[in-house]
Amino acid sequence: MIIDVSIIAPIGGIIALFFALFLYFSVKKQSPGNEKMQELSVAIRKGAMAFLKSEYKVLIAFVLVVSVLLFAASIGDDSTIHWGTSLAFVIGAIFSAVTGNIGMRMATMANARTAEGTKNKLSKGLSIAFSSGAVMGMCVVGLGVLGVFSLFLLFFYYLDLGILLTTNILFGFGFGASSIALFARVGGGIYTKSADVGADLVGKVEAGIPEDDPRNPAVIADQVGDNVGDVAGMGADLFESYVDSIIATMALAAIAGAVVTSGEILPWLPKEELLASGDTLNFVMLPLIVAGMGIFSAIIGTLVVILGKGKNIYGALRNSLFIATIFTAIFGGVATWYLLGRLEPFYAMLAGLIGGILIGLSTEYFTSEKRRPAQGIAEASKTGPATVIIQGLQVGMISTIIPIIAVVIAMMVAYLLSGFYGVALSAVGMLSILGVSLATDCYGPVADNAQGISEMAGMGSEVRERTEQLDAVGNTTAAMGKGFAIGSAAITSLALIFTYIFTANTLLPPESPLVLKLSDPYLVSGIFIGAMLPFVFAALTMGAVGKAAYAMVEEVRYQFKKFNLLKSDKNKPDYERCVKISTNRALKEMIIPSLLAVISPVVVGIVLRPEGLGGLLMGSIASGFLLAVFLANSGGAWDNAKKYIESGNLGGKGSDAHKATVIGDTVGDPCKDTSGPSLNILIKLMSIVSLVFLPLIIALT
Amino acid sequence: MIIDVSIIAPIGGIIALFFALFLYFSVKKQSPGNEKMQELSVAIRKGAMAFLKSEYKVLIAFVLVVSVLLFAASIGDDSTIHWGTSLAFVIGAIFSAVTGNIGMRMATMANARTAEGTKNKLSKGLSIAFSSGAVMGMCVVGLGVLGVFSLFLLFFYYLDLGILLTTNILFGFGFGASSIALFARVGGGIYTKSADVGADLVGKVEAGIPEDDPRNPAVIADQVGDNVGDVAGMGADLFESYVDSIIATMALAAIAGAVVTSGEILPWLPKEELLASGDTLNFVMLPLIVAGMGIFSAIIGTLVVILGKGKNIYGALRNSLFIATIFTAIFGGVATWYLLGRLEPFYAMLAGLIGGILIGLSTEYFTSEKRRPAQGIAEASKTGPATVIIQGLQVGMISTIIPIIAVVIAMMVAYLLSGFYGVALSAVGMLSILGVSLATDCYGPVADNAQGISEMAGMGSEVRERTEQLDAVGNTTAAMGKGFAIGSAAITSLALIFTYIFTANTLLPPESPLVLKLSDPYLVSGIFIGAMLPFVFAALTMGAVGKAAYAMVEEVRYQFKKFNLLKSDKNKPDYERCVKISTNRALKEMIIPSLLAVISPVVVGIVLRPEGLGGLLMGSIASGFLLAVFLANSGGAWDNAKKYIESGNLGGKGSDAHKATVIGDTVGDPCKDTSGPSLNILIKLMSIVSLVFLPLIIALT
Repeated sequence: MIIDVSIIAPIGGIIALFFALFLYFSVKKQSPGNEKMQELSVAIRKGAMAFLKSEYKVLIAFVLVVSVLLFAASIGDDSTIHWGTSLAFVIGAIFSAVTGNIGMRMATMANARTAEGTKNKLSKGLSIAFSSGAVMGMCVVGLGVLGVFSLFLLFFYYLDLGILLTTNILFGFGFGASSIALFARVGGGIYTKSADVGADLVGKVEAGIPEDDPRNPAVIADQVGDNVGDVAGMGADLFESYVDSIIATMALAAIAGAVVTSGEILPWLPKEELLASGDTLNFVMLPLIVAGMGIFSAIIGTLVVILGKGKNIYGALRNSLFIATIFTAIFGGVATWYLLGRLEPFYAMLAGLIGGILIGLSTEYFTSEKRRPAQGIAEASKTGPATVIIQGLQVGMISTIIPIIAVVIAMMVAYLLSGFYGVALSAVGMLSILGVSLATDCYGPVADNAQGISEMAGMGSEVRERTEQLDAVGNTTAAMGKGFAIGSAAITSLALIFTYIFTANTLLPPESPLVLKLSDPYLVSGIFIGAMLPFVFAALTMGAVGKAAYAMVEEVRYQFKKFNLLKSDKNKPDYERCVKISTNRALKEMIIPSLLAVISPVVVGIVLRPEGLGGLLMGSIASGFLLAVFLANSGGAWDNAKKYIESGNLGGKGSDAHKATVIGDTVGDPCKDTSGPSLNILIKLMSIVSLVFLPLIIALT
Repeated sequence: MIIDVSIIAPIGGIIALFFALFLYFSVKKQSPGNEKMQELSVAIRKGAMAFLKSEYKVLIAFVLVVSVLLFAASIGDDSTIHWGTSLAFVIGAIFSAVTGNIGMRMATMANARTAEGTKNKLSKGLSIAFSSGAVMGMCVVGLGVLGVFSLFLLFFYYLDLGILLTTNILFGFGFGASSIALFARVGGGIYTKSADVGADLVGKVEAGIPEDDPRNPAVIADQVGDNVGDVAGMGADLFESYVDSIIATMALAAIAGAVVTSGEILPWLPKEELLASGDTLNFVMLPLIVAGMGIFSAIIGTLVVILGKGKNIYGALRNSLFIATIFTAIFGGVATWYLLGRLEPFYAMLAGLIGGILIGLSTEYFTSEKRRPAQGIAEASKTGPATVIIQGLQVGMISTIIPIIAVVIAMMVAYLLSGFYGVALSAVGMLSILGVSLATDCYGPVADNAQGISEMAGMGSEVRERTEQLDAVGNTTAAMGKGFAIGSAAITSLALIFTYIFTANTLLPPESPLVLKLSDPYLVSGIFIGAMLPFVFAALTMGAVGKAAYAMVEEVRYQFKKFNLLKSDKNKPDYERCVKISTNRALKEMIIPSLLAVISPVVVGIVLRPEGLGGLLMGSIASGFLLAVFLANSGGAWDNAKKYIESGNLGGKGSDAHKATVIGDTVGDPCKDTSGPSLNILIKLMSIVSLVFLPLIIALT
C-alpha cells in the first residue's frame, strides 16, 4: 500500500468533521428569532430528542443482543464468525446513531434561525438551512470514511488478520449501520406520517383550521416528524449505502487478490500479476481514497451554496451538485490512474455517478408539478378521486423504467470495463458526492420547519412567502434525493450480492463452489420469496402508519374537546402527549417489519441453503427496487398534483378537483415517506445480514 | 409407447367436444324468455360478435405476419426453426380462437335463458348458466388435448422428426394459443372496463340512474364486456396455461430421454435406464393421458351441478370442484403407476393440484365480503376514501404471501420427488380439473348478464332476487377463478423457464452449455428488466382503460343530450355506437402493450444473450406473479368492501362510507379486470416466445 496516499481518506474524514463543526457554530451564532419562535423551536427539538431517546432504548437492546450473539458465535475453536465482527457491528451502530443525533440537533436548531434569516434576506435563510443540512452530510461521510478506515487499520495492520478476514469483519460495520438505518427509516417513517396524517385529518379536514395552526395539538409532532423521517431516516439510509458500497468494493478487491482467480473480479488483471505487483492493497484502498477525495469536492460544492448571494435557490443547489460532481470525477480519475495505472475502474465509477444523477432527474420529472405526469394526475381530478388514484398508480409504475435501465446500464458498463470490482465501484461513484447531496436532502425538512414556525409565530406575509419559496425547492430536492437514495440502495445491494457470491467461494472448498443457477429450484424458491418480502414489508409499514395515525386522531379529537381549543385560547394544547404517542406507536409498530428483515435471510439461508439465500437477495433487490420507485414516485406525483391545483390551476384550493387530489396526496403519504424509503433499507439490510451470517449458514447447511 | 393407453387422450378430447355439443343443445332448447329479453340478448350477442369480428381482423393480420416470419426462418439449409412451428402456431391460434368464439356464442345465448329459467326455479337457472360455462370448459380441454395430440401424431409418427424436434415444434402451438390469449385478455380487459366505467361514471354518478338502466346507451356494451373479458379472456388465458403445461412436461421428458442426463430432469432414473427401458414415450405421453382422464373427472363434476336440485348454489359449485379433484387424483395416480411403475410423478401432480386449490381459497379469503380483509376496507371508509385505498393496497400486498408460498412449496415438493419433470407435471396437475373449474368461472358472466337482463326487462323482484343470488355466487367463484388463473400461470411459466434452460442445452454444443448464473451481469440485467416489464405492462393497460373509458363517457354524455334520453322515452339510445367505441378503442389501445410482450424477449435475447433472456423470464415471472396477485386481490377486496356496505352495513347505500368504497371499487376495476389478469398472459407469452425463438437467438448470439 502506498500509505502516504491512502492517508487522504482519514484526512478527508477529519476535515469533514471539522467543517461540520465550523458550520455548526456558524449556524449557532445566528439569531434564533423572537421568544415565540424560540419556544416553538425548543418544543420541536425536545420532541425530536424524546423520540431519539426512546428509539435508543430499543436500539441499545437490539445492538446488545445482536452483538452478544455475534460474539458468542465467535467463541470456540470451530467458530465461524470472528469476534471483530461483533466489535465492528457495535461501532457501525454507534457511528450511524451519532450522525443521526448530530443531524437532528442541527436541524432542530436551524429551523427558527432559518425563518429569522429569511426575514433579513432569502439567501441568508438558504445559507442557514443548507449549512445545517451540510452538517449532516459531512458527519455521514466523515464518520463513514473514518470508521471503515480505522477498523481496517486495526484488523489488518495491528492485528494482522489478513486482508480477507479483515474485509469480512468490515461487513459487521455495515450491519451496524444497517440496523440503525432500519430503525431510523422504518420507525421514523411511521412517526412522520402518523403525525402528519393525524394532524391533517382532524385539524384540516374535521376542524377546518389551517395547516401548522398552533391550536392543533399534533402540530409539533408533525414538525418533529419532518426531522425524524427526512433528516435522521435519510441520513442513516445513505450512511448505510455509503459504507456498504465502500466495504463491498474493498472485499471484492481482497477476494480477487487472495482467492478466486481475478479474471472474474478484475478482468484485465490475471491473478498472478495482481499478486506479483503487490497491488492488491491499492485496489482495496481505492474506494476509501475516492470517498476521502469526494469529501473535498463536497466541501467545495457546499461553499458554492453557502457563499452564494443569488435569489435562484434551485439553481444554487443544482450548481453545487454539479460542481461537486465535476470535482469528484477529476479527483476520482487522478486517484485511479495514480494507484492502478489504468482508467477502467474510473469509468465504472463515472457510470455509477451518471446513473445516480439520471435516476434523480427521472424522479424529478415524474413528480414535479411543472411536468406532465403530475399535471396529468391533477387533470384526472376532473373525473374525481378514483381517476386521480388510477393515474397516480400508472405514473408510479411507468416511472420505474428509467431507474431500472439506468442501473442496468451502469452495471453493465462497469462490469464490462472493470468486472465485479467495477460494479461495486460504480456504487461508490454514485455515492461519492454524498457529502453535498445529503445536504440538499436535509435542507428540505429545515426549510419545511422554518415555514411552519413562520406560520405559527405569525411572522407576516413577506417572511412566509420567502420561507414558502425555500420549502418549495426543498420539496423538489427531496424528490430527487429519494430517487438517489433508492438508486444507490439498488446498486449497493447489487454490489453486496456479488460480494456474497464470491465471499461464499472463499469459505467453501474450491471443489464445491457456490453456483447460483437459475435451474436450481432452491434458488428459484429464494427468488420468489425474496420478491415477495418487499410487498409484505410495504404492507406492514403502511398498516403501521394507519394504526399510529388512528391513535393520533383520537388524541387530537380528545384534546380539542377537553381543552376547548377551537373556541377559546385560554388553554394551550398538550403538544408533548402527541409527540409521545407518535414516538411510542412508531417504535411499537416498527418491531414486526424489522424482525422480518433481519430474520428472513437467516431462516431462508438455513432452510433453502446458501443457494436459496442468493435467490432471496436477488428477488428482493429486483422487486424491492421496483416497488420503492413505484411507491415513492406515485406518492410524490400525487403530492405535487395537489400542489399544482393549490397554486391556482383547475379551480384552485377548495374546488372539487382539489379535494380529489387531497385524497391522492393522503394515499401517497405513507407510500412515499414510509413504505417506499423503508424498502431501501430492507434490500441492503438483508444483503448485509446474509454476508455477516454467511459463514454460519455455510457451516450449518 | 403403449398406444392403447395414450388413446385415452384423444378419446377424452372427443368426448369433451361431444359433451359440449350436448350441453349446447340442452341450453338451446330452453325458453329464451319474452320478446324484450330476446331483444336484449340479441343485442348483447351482436355486440359480442362485433367485437370478435373486429378482433379477428387484427388477429388474422398478426397470425399471418408471425407465421410467415416463422416459416421464412425455416427456409434454407441452415434454418434454425422447423417449418412445423409455423403450422403449429397457426393451429394453436385457430383452436384458441374457436374456443373463445364458441364460449361467447354460448354465454350470450344462455343469459336470457338463465333469467327465464330462474323465473321457474333457482336450480334451473343455475343449471343453464353452469351448462353454458361448461361448454367453454369442455371446448378448452377438448381442443387443447386434441390439438397437442394430433400435432404430436403428425410430426412424431407420420413425419418421424424425432421426439426432441417434435416437442420443439409443439412450442409453436403454445405460442399460437398465447397470441390469442394476449388479444383476448388485454383487448377484452380494456373493453370490459372501459364500458363498465364509462357506463357508471355518466349513468350512475352523473345522471343518477340505476345500474343496467336501459336508457343508458353504454348498458349493452357493459353486458358485452362481461362476456368479452370473463368468458373469452379467461378461456383463452387458461387454454394457454393448459396446453403450455402439457407441452412443457412433454418437452422435459423428451430432453431427459434424448440429450441431457436425466438425473436432473428425472432424478430417480439414470439416463441409460430410461433409454434402455424405451420408456421415454411413456414419460412424454403421461401429461396428455392425465389431461385426457381429467376430462372424465370434469364431466362427472359438471353433472353434479347440472343435475343438482338443491338451493345452495355455492355448495353445488364447490362440490363439483371437489368431486372432480378426487377423481382426477385417482385417475392420475392410476395412470402414473400404470405407465411409469412409480408414484413420485403423481405426488408432484398432486402438489400442484393442492397448491392451485390453496391459491383459490386464499383469493377467496382476501376478497370475500364475508371475511376480515374486505370488511376492514369497508371500515376504513369511516375516515374517507383515502384510507379505503390505503387499506386496499395493504390487503393486496399482504395477500401475496399464500400464493407465493403455495407455488414455492408445490415446486419444491414436485422437484424433490420428481425433478424438473415433476415441476412441469405439477402445473399439469393444477390444471387437470380445468374442464370444470373453467365452467365455474364462465358461469359468472352469464349469471351477471342474466341479472342485467332481468333488470332491464323488468322481470319483477322475485326473479331479480334469484338472479342476484346467482350473480353473488358468480362473484365469489370469479375471485377464486382469478386466483387459480394467476397461480397456474406462475407455475406454468416456471415449467416453461426450466424447459427453456434444458432446451437451450439441447441446441448448444455440450462443452458450452447455457449456465444461468446469478454472478452473470447479463443475467442480472435480464432479471431487472424482466421484473420491470410487468409494472410497465400494468401501467399501459391501466392507461388504456382510462383512455377508452373517457371516449365512452363522451359518447354517453352526447347521446343523453342528443336523444334527450333522461327526460323522454321517445328516442331509443344507440347501443351499437357504444359497442363500436369500446371495440375500436380496446383494439387500438391493446397494440402497444401487446408488442411489448412479444418483442421484449426477442430483443433482450439478442442484446443480452440467452443468459439475459433467462433472467428476463425469471424476473418477469417473479414480479408479474406478485403484481398480478396484488392487483387482482386489491381490486376484488375493494369491490366486495363496497358490496358489504351495500348489503346494509356501516350505513348502507348512499352513505358517505358507501361513496368512499365506490371510489375504491372504481380504482380496483382496471386493477382486477384488466391489468392484473393481463399479467398472466405476459409472463406465459414471454416464456413461450423465448422457447420458440430460442434456436434463432442462439444462432444470432
